[in-house]
Amino acid sequence: MPDQPFADTPPPPYVAVIFTSIRADGDHGYAAMAASMERLAREQPGFLGIESARDGVGITVSYWADQQAARGWKQVAAHLVAQRRGRATWYRDYRVRVATVERDYAMDSSPIDAG
Amino acid sequence: MPDQPFADTPPPPYVAVIFTSIRADGDHGYAAMAASMERLAREQPGFLGIESARDGVGITVSYWADQQAARGWKQVAAHLVAQRRGRATWYRDYRVRVATVERDYAMDSSPIDAG
Repeated sequence: MPDQPFADTPPPPYVAVIFTSIRADGDHGYAAMAASMERLAREQPGFLGIESARDGVGITVSYWADQQAARGWKQVAAHLVAQRRGRATWYRDYRVRVATVERDYAMDSSPIDAG
Repeated sequence: MPDQPFADTPPPPYVAVIFTSIRADGDHGYAAMAASMERLAREQPGFLGIESARDGVGITVSYWADQQAARGWKQVAAHLVAQRRGRATWYRDYRVRVATVERDYAMDSSPIDAG
């Protein structure tokens, strides 16, 4: 579990990129690539935070200030993957969904940013 | 890993409810509650699918036909939790984000529904 399991997002609206994946067999540099990917995400303009879990299926949700920031990240991520071994080395299959968050709340029922 | 790791969603727009959580210690009926919750979700009007992973932090994304369906699910889920032991028994903390999915694609770059 990461030090900060929850992304520290501002009041909505903001953008969520939901990446759901099934890994291919073997590492083939996957762990290093995933670490680079997250480091790179944190440096992008408009990055707000990231939440990630895997047990068989993996779900990573990255949060972005707006659609432009999310699109910018897509380009950077695609470039990083292309530079290395390519998607089929690491993933059997995946889905990407880009969504605008319209409301949010924490366990105490407050908006996240007020927590 | 579930039999169908990816939710079989229609073309956008549709609604994603992103639930990120940290478990409290002990089971206290959590596994039974989680199973009931998923079974109940599948019976709700407007349910499209669910994707879930946990390793320390848990992420469950449920997909709904529209905002009304997502709100209906929130009421049902809250009722189920209230009937049993309550949130603090199972969760140390959580976040809920409700988002409208505007575009999606699969590994082969096609829209998910065309796959």
